[in-house]
Order: sequence, then structure tokens, then C-alpha cells
Amino acid sequence: MFTGLSAFPLTPLDDDRFDERAYARLVTRLVEAGVDSIGALGSTGSYAYLDRRERGRVARAAVRSAGDTPVIVGIGALRTSQVRALAQDAQEAGAAGVLLAPMSYQALTDDEVFGLYEDVTADLSVPLVVYDNPGTTHFTFSTELYARIAGLPNVAAIKIPPVPLDPDAAREHVAAIHRAVPEHVRIGVSGDGAAVTGLNAGGRVWFSTVGGTVPGIVTPLARAALDGDPAVAVAGSKRLRPLWDLFAAHGSLRVTAAIAEHLGLVAPHCLPRPVQGLAAAQRQRVARLVEELHLA
Amino acid sequence: MFTGLSAFPLTPLDDDRFDERAYARLVTRLVEAGVDSIGALGSTGSYAYLDRRERGRVARAAVRSAGDTPVIVGIGALRTSQVRALAQDAQEAGAAGVLLAPMSYQALTDDEVFGLYEDVTADLSVPLVVYDNPGTTHFTFSTELYARIAGLPNVAAIKIPPVPLDPDAAREHVAAIHRAVPEHVRIGVSGDGAAVTGLNAGGRVWFSTVGGTVPGIVTPLARAALDGDPAVAVAGSKRLRPLWDLFAAHGSLRVTAAIAEHLGLVAPHCLPRPVQGLAAAQRQRVARLVEELHLA
Repeated sequence: MFTGLSAFPLTPLDDDRFDERAYARLVTRLVEAGVDSIGALGSTGSYAYLDRRERGRVARAAVRSAGDTPVIVGIGALRTSQVRALAQDAQEAGAAGVLLAPMSYQALTDDEVFGLYEDVTADLSVPLVVYDNPGTTHFTFSTELYARIAGLPNVAAIKIPPVPLDPDAAREHVAAIHRAVPEHVRIGVSGDGAAVTGLNAGGRVWFSTVGGTVPGIVTPLARAALDGDPAVAVAGSKRLRPLWDLFAAHGSLRVTAAIAEHLGLVAPHCLPRPVQGLAAAQRQRVARLVEELHLA
Repeated sequence: MFTGLSAFPLTPLDDDRFDERAYARLVTRLVEAGVDSIGALGSTGSYAYLDRRERGRVARAAVRSAGDTPVIVGIGALRTSQVRALAQDAQEAGAAGVLLAPMSYQALTDDEVFGLYEDVTADLSVPLVVYDNPGTTHFTFSTELYARIAGLPNVAAIKIPPVPLDPDAAREHVAAIHRAVPEHVRIGVSGDGAAVTGLNAGGRVWFSTVGGTVPGIVTPLARAALDGDPAVAVAGSKRLRPLWDLFAAHGSLRVTAAIAEHLGLVAPHCLPRPVQGLAAAQRQRVARLVEELHLA
């Protein structure tokens, strides 16, 4: 399951309510594009903004539409007991794996984050992905902490932040993590603009934001990188550079939502307020990119 | 209401459940100490970790035990619709005011934060305190944004982060905010170790973490600062310096919880996991400080 392209769909809202029909369409697109797994309720899926009941509905809808494609469900929350309840819900919904970021309000210590993973993995029966996203959690993992957590039962993969864009630096970075963790633990890369570099550096799975909406543009790049054709992957990612620049300027979530709204896949203003979509001028830029880069 | 000492009690848990009896005792202590207002469900009250039902229970318990002392209730949440529901609940519980921090998962823009306050104040019938706590929200307010938000209906006060410890710098800082916002908007200070400096610099209310557990040690300092005896307030705060140092090292929440646990006011491990209390050595230091500084 933790290989290839793992596509993270938006959880589209319509007038602040979960838009289940649009979501089923998004997930079906991913299956048809042949992604290797689906990441429901990732950061792209706005997990942090949804309550337990909504998250249960999203998880069940994802599994229903995914068919044989494995679904990884995000279970992050601020309180350990909430995370455990969400893990239970995700497993009952049929999740093949779960994804856990150490969300924080009060800054957490390393021991507290380790304790979180220890408590949650203790009663888990599916594999867990450690989700390291300092931009949203404001927690920074050390390689030592990766190693401690990777030794816990059911820990199967680590979703790391964007690797350095220099290929040598990226390779050394991924290798250092590989040296620290047990051999069965996979390294997955995130940050779509740096993901090909990350795969070429030894990452085994690309956790993709834009791939959750327009899977056709990134799935072939993941294949090329993992099947021994790194130059093709690099060229493909380079072609998408204007998109990565837009991600860097406005955040991948807002840009991806604008793409989905432009393509009519979701209702306008599909993000949870207070998060707002892009302004009009930026949306025009997105519309032009959709044409120029054949995003659909 | 937005003057003097505003005391923020812990929301103690016992085995991960809201400990209503201990909470009632904490709030009663505050009333007996003569605090000017009570801040229920502030950061000290772990609002971010509690679900809507728990927060309703805490708000009602606070109002019930507070008697004639006004209660300000924290309504922060990641999603605007959740904040609006919590505002409704707080008002129905009898809150005299509400406190709102722009919690974030995805980084928010100034326009998004303004939009949050605009949406929430639109259907509010009690005064609102803008809660600026970059250490937990990871959002940084500019003075310009204070001014925009302070022009919205029902905005009555701004709870600012710790002022600079240099008295002249603190005075200039508070004066600059006062110049930018309407005259009726009060500036409240936070960060207990810098609060006397903040009051002497023109702040009108001290939003206090430690004052929510041991109100007797800080209420007289707030009185002195606001009643024209700044030197007495400075000397009193200086005496508490070892406590402020401990706050700086471990966070005011963990230290205050350790004080409350040491005094037997709450059950052991009263904080919501994954947040853990202090380690044994730090607790011994807290116990010594409770003796030396006569905290009770």
C-alpha cells in the first residue's frame, strides 16, 4: 500500500456541509486514474476542521467509492482520546491504514509526541503512517524521534516534509532517515513540487495534494521515478513548475481547491471558513494554468 | 468587566473526563479572592482540546459557581461555523463576554482572520475579546489588523501577548495599539511575568494564568498597578521571579497545573493528553516554590 502515488482528495464543502456527491466523484476519478492508494482526510481533506461525525461520514464515503484501492484515513486531533476514537471509527469504516500528525495547540515535547503515538498504536489493527507536517502542526520531528516512534507496533511509514531540492542533499536526507528506522518502515514524500526529487532520493511513496484532484498529471511521474526512469520524472515535474510556484505562493490547498472549483468538480467556496479560496486574479491565473498544463 | 484581574482557571480532567467538582472549587476560590472577572476556557482552560458538549458543560459550571463575577468564555475553534455555535452556547450559558483566538491549522491570511471576526461578531450580543496568542495560534496580528477588527461591533478588548520587559518599550508598544483602535477598546495584557509591566504601560486588565489557580498572589499586584502604586506592583512581581522563570522554561500551563495538583485542588494528571504534566524533578521544584513564595 505504501508505494507509488497516494492521492489526497479535498473534502469539499457546499455551504459549510460535507458535499458527499462531489466527494464520491473525486474519489472515483482517483480509482479510474489508477492511483496506488487514497489518502482521505489528510491536510488536503481538511481533517482538522471536521468533527467526529463528519469524519466518519467522509471515511465511509471514501472506502465505498474506492473499491479495491486502499484508503488511508487521517486520524489527527488535538487530544489523544479523540485520536483513539477516530482511529476506531476509521477502522470500522474499512480504512486500510491510518495517518497521524501530532496536531498541537500547546507546544508539545518529544516525549509527549512519542506518548501520543504509543497510546494510539497500542490498540490499532491497521498500519499507521507518521505524518510530519511542521507547517500545520508546528511540531518538528528529529530523526531520533522518528526512530523511537518507528519502533512502535503498526508503524509502517513516515510521511516526511518536502526534501531539499538539491538531489544529493535529498538523497543524504532520506538515507539518514532510512538508517535510523527499521527496514520495514517506508519513507513517503510530500510537497508536490519536491516529490519527484524525494522519490529519486529513495522515497517509496508520493503523498500528493494535487494528485487528489488531477491524478493524471502526477501518477505517471511517480511510476517513472519508481520504475527506474528518473529523468522522465524530473522532466515531467519541471513542466509543472508554474503550478509548484503557485503552490509556494498561496499554499497547495487553496490552489488545488481553485483547480477543482474551476473544473466544476466541487461547488464554489469548497474550503472550510475561515480558510478562503483564492482571490479573483489568482483564480484567473489558475484557469490559465489548467489550460496550459492540460490539468484535468 | 475588562479591568483589573481576569483569572483563567484550569479545566481539570480526571481520567480524561471534565472534573466538574474540582472546577467548581477552583472558580469559587476566584470569587472569594475578589478577582474582577473569570476567563473560562482560555488556553489555560484547555479549550482547544474539548469538544462542544464538554465546553458547554464547562461554561455552565463556570457561570454557576461565579455568582456575580462576570465570566468570559473562550469560543475559539478551527472552523468559523464551530466558533459561531460555541458563541451561541456561551451566551446561552450566561457568559458576560467571549474570547476568540484565531486558531489555525492551515496558515491564515489577514483577510481570513478579519473574516472570522466579522462573521462571529455579526450575531453576537455580548462583548468580544480579541485573543492574540501567537505561541498557540501561530498567527501574528499586525497593529493594522487590530484596528480593522476593533472597528467591528461588540469588540471590546484585545488580549495582547507579553509586552517588552523594558518599561519604555512597553509603554510605546501599548500606546501604539491605543492610537490605532477606537477609544472604547481596552488593552489587556497576558504573560504573567510581564503583566505588571504591561499594566504600568497602560494595559487595563491582566488576563492571568496563575491567577486562575492562586489568585491571592496576583490580584493585589493588579490593584496596585491600576490604583497608582506601580512600584509596589513591580516589587511584588519581582518577588515572583522564580515562578516566571519556571513558566519560561516549561510553559505557564504545565507549571500552573503542577501547582494545582500539588495543592490538591485537582486530580493528578489533570491536563489533556498528549499534553503531560511536569516531570518529577520539576514537580519538586514547584513544590519548593509553593512553600517559598507562599502560593496557596
